[in-house]
Amino acid sequence: MTEEARRSPERAKRLPRAVREKQILDAAVQVFSRHGYHSASMDEVSEVAGVSKPMIYSYLGAKEDLFIHCIRREANRLLAAVEAGIKPDLAPDMQLWHGLRSFYAFVAEYRESWTVLHRQAMSVGGPFADEVNAMRERAIELVAALVVSAGARRGLAEQAESSGEGMAAALVGAAESLADWWLDHSDVPDGVLASWLMNLVWLGFNDLVEGAVWKPAE
Amino acid sequence: MTEEARRSPERAKRLPRAVREKQILDAAVQVFSRHGYHSASMDEVSEVAGVSKPMIYSYLGAKEDLFIHCIRREANRLLAAVEAGIKPDLAPDMQLWHGLRSFYAFVAEYRESWTVLHRQAMSVGGPFADEVNAMRERAIELVAALVVSAGARRGLAEQAESSGEGMAAALVGAAESLADWWLDHSDVPDGVLASWLMNLVWLGFNDLVEGAVWKPAE
Repeated sequence: MTEEARRSPERAKRLPRAVREKQILDAAVQVFSRHGYHSASMDEVSEVAGVSKPMIYSYLGAKEDLFIHCIRREANRLLAAVEAGIKPDLAPDMQLWHGLRSFYAFVAEYRESWTVLHRQAMSVGGPFADEVNAMRERAIELVAALVVSAGARRGLAEQAESSGEGMAAALVGAAESLADWWLDHSDVPDGVLASWLMNLVWLGFNDLVEGAVWKPAE
Repeated sequence: MTEEARRSPERAKRLPRAVREKQILDAAVQVFSRHGYHSASMDEVSEVAGVSKPMIYSYLGAKEDLFIHCIRREANRLLAAVEAGIKPDLAPDMQLWHGLRSFYAFVAEYRESWTVLHRQAMSVGGPFADEVNAMRERAIELVAALVVSAGARRGLAEQAESSGEGMAAALVGAAESLADWWLDHSDVPDGVLASWLMNLVWLGFNDLVEGAVWKPAE
């Protein structure tokens, strides 16, 4: 070890900026998910990351900016995981199934990410909630495209066009709400959540595109 | 008109406290839904309500308390409207149908209430979001009871017990998310929203309790 490294081990390891940022964000997600935005301290982020506070400020800004960076990264990771799970060659129900499996697998593996995205960001509100809402819009577009393509396959393009986006908004809300419920009921395996949701929504939509329509029995 | 009434018309009309509070809350919901919590001014609430600011403070407190009172009242009204719509003698699907109809009719008629409850309260977060989450929990319990009773009727009590609450959380999330979507797509009639959701979720659940189970075709 050089004399300089002994004096300042951090400076000695000249890690690329991207690596440092990843360390900081990993630590921040952990700290924010544990304490919530308001109670989280930059001292703890610095300690968990093993990166000095001045370096955190210089790379990712103060607490507010850091939280926005966390939300953005986790939202992008979540959407990327869901999109990667969807195989465009499969039938629409299988696409949705794989998308849901990927979603709940992500929530199960990165529980802290989901906690930050869904609970912490939404409960602080303001620009943080706006970031999460932007992610929701992208998820709704993704599902709407699926619903419309499923409808088109069955010759019901027009019907799917008119109700597809609303249906997609409902489905995304159902998936989120079940994931939120799961934070307090983690004994249910994540694959079971995906199959509950398929049973709830897909058999429904499937019947619909087959021409079956629920009507009040009055 | 007495001399006193001419000097202070407000004091002359000695309205019961409950009536005054209603005037204030009606005005506050209007103002909060229009401007959001942070930008809403107590001056405007006072002007719209026709009630002096000191009287507002003395009856319902400062802005934070007033906002909490608004959320609580609107949450209770919304749940009461949904519960009133449900006729316990009907078949479970009809109960859900009437519950959803009542929910979307409420959102359509009291758009400002829904905006305050769903958008404003959630985007400010903190204790306001907690109030809304408490309302969500009550809604989930209501739907879970319905799902469990539907399962029991078909001899699937055990299955409905295990998945009922998760299904109910998904369903409440779907209903909320569709109502949120509707705030930006108000040309769709509220009855159509309820029937989209029935088609999406009920045919699904109905098939499920009939013993049909969706499985991945692998």
